[in-house]
Amino acid sequence: MALWVHENFQNSLSMGYKVTDMLFNAQSKFQQISIVETALMGKMLLLDGMVMTSERDEFIYHELIAHIPLLAHPCPKTVLIIGGGDGGTLREVLKHPTVERAVLCEIDEMVIDACKQFLPTIASTLNSEQDAARFEIELRDGAAYVYENPNTFDVIIVDSTDPIGPGERLFTEAFYKNTKAALTESGIMVNQSESPISSPDECRRINAMLHAVFPVVKPYTACVPTYPGSQWTWTFCSNGILPNNNTGPSASQPDRVAPLTPQCRYFNADIQHAVFALPNYMEALLSPSVDRPLQSCSRN
Amino acid sequence: MALWVHENFQNSLSMGYKVTDMLFNAQSKFQQISIVETALMGKMLLLDGMVMTSERDEFIYHELIAHIPLLAHPCPKTVLIIGGGDGGTLREVLKHPTVERAVLCEIDEMVIDACKQFLPTIASTLNSEQDAARFEIELRDGAAYVYENPNTFDVIIVDSTDPIGPGERLFTEAFYKNTKAALTESGIMVNQSESPISSPDECRRINAMLHAVFPVVKPYTACVPTYPGSQWTWTFCSNGILPNNNTGPSASQPDRVAPLTPQCRYFNADIQHAVFALPNYMEALLSPSVDRPLQSCSRN
Repeated sequence: MALWVHENFQNSLSMGYKVTDMLFNAQSKFQQISIVETALMGKMLLLDGMVMTSERDEFIYHELIAHIPLLAHPCPKTVLIIGGGDGGTLREVLKHPTVERAVLCEIDEMVIDACKQFLPTIASTLNSEQDAARFEIELRDGAAYVYENPNTFDVIIVDSTDPIGPGERLFTEAFYKNTKAALTESGIMVNQSESPISSPDECRRINAMLHAVFPVVKPYTACVPTYPGSQWTWTFCSNGILPNNNTGPSASQPDRVAPLTPQCRYFNADIQHAVFALPNYMEALLSPSVDRPLQSCSRN
Repeated sequence: MALWVHENFQNSLSMGYKVTDMLFNAQSKFQQISIVETALMGKMLLLDGMVMTSERDEFIYHELIAHIPLLAHPCPKTVLIIGGGDGGTLREVLKHPTVERAVLCEIDEMVIDACKQFLPTIASTLNSEQDAARFEIELRDGAAYVYENPNTFDVIIVDSTDPIGPGERLFTEAFYKNTKAALTESGIMVNQSESPISSPDECRRINAMLHAVFPVVKPYTACVPTYPGSQWTWTFCSNGILPNNNTGPSASQPDRVAPLTPQCRYFNADIQHAVFALPNYMEALLSPSVDRPLQSCSRN
């Protein structure tokens, strides 16, 4: 028998992986959670049939969503991760020695438990006794959590699913406003902001909402092979801090990239800058311009 | 009826696209040639069932394989394209006003004819009377052609299929040596060099062969959504010229990126540098080191 898992994206794109083992499959209160072993991409987590992460390419996504904001902040001590139940983003966040308190706010406990058991390289920090003192888990809706915790976090990372199902409320202007309020004055928010290839309208909508809320909005991009469209974006938002303002090595800034341990598999000082170089089509899609009014989004 | 086309990669990955129209399907002397209209990626060319290009993402591949070498060369006049029967690379090459003679060496005439008819936005230059004086078509095996034309071209672009079928001989050290000989002294060769996600061994093998032949070997990378693995590489090779040595804007160098017309959809001056920023895993895979001997390839 040939066993395959296929993610069907909007009935127009299908990405399939040969499955060598079925490790976990259960329905939680929120979604269907599946973990399979694949021939090409290693073990893979799917929520409601959509690929969330794979052992083979998870480091790309997790390193980029974590290190860009943490290196831009002068001294990140408190970090909130919304979503991210697989633990990969938390693993990267705790590579930064300044971080004293990381909160993982994941709505679905079953995701965390399944990843701890079946994706131990991604969930390594969740399983680590040594790291336990530096993070806590909130089994909560992230939108409610940020609303209840104003002026608290140096960095907020929105490591969400796509804007359908449980993740939908994490793609609204009201959520972004509450996220901004949950940041300290020099705080930084980064979210995963979809693919300009498979979801250009969604990318543009997210970007316009962020521009209506944050003074600094800087999209960045890289290839995540297992996501539909593969060309992925994240967006860096702040009250004024710029992405590469504060990172060395220079006469006045120590190099904060090289000492990250365990060593990154994707991230380095060149990548830190290169991901902000947007192709022309993406620049055109995401730049706030007169003919793509922000007002229409502010009215939402 | 729901019609889908699926590319099966090494029986481990499947990429499928909903087909809205079947435009062309025929067997040439060399391969099966299919052109379909898809719901997500526009019209798409497949050779032997493998996606070669799509209207939706073709500009990424074609702009990067053409503009990187052409901008690095101080004054490219003669350009050879090996493969590239869809015309996309030729279209980009002729955006450079210095180019007087471009040779498209494509083994399969039926690919050219089908693309001229069914992919007119990609094959625009092939159909253009205005451009006709600046290019010629050689219906030949590219390996034989470079062997017969030493010291002729300022830039050679190997826009090949994968290393199976008709493209296989374009991934050998003998071919790279003949390609080097076909270059002028300040010449530059760029080839498409596969995906470090789906074909890491192939990437490494190609890179080691190129290091055995060329003094300067610089891989670069971007996301091509419709190729298996999506994270794609090209490799820049020369006798000494570096990729960004020769391009402005600076006091002594005019800006050669901005005037390219029609305007690029992907390429700009930031991208020109950013594509050479390699993630750590790719750097490790592709850097020639003592424990990954080049000798084993030189013996081939």
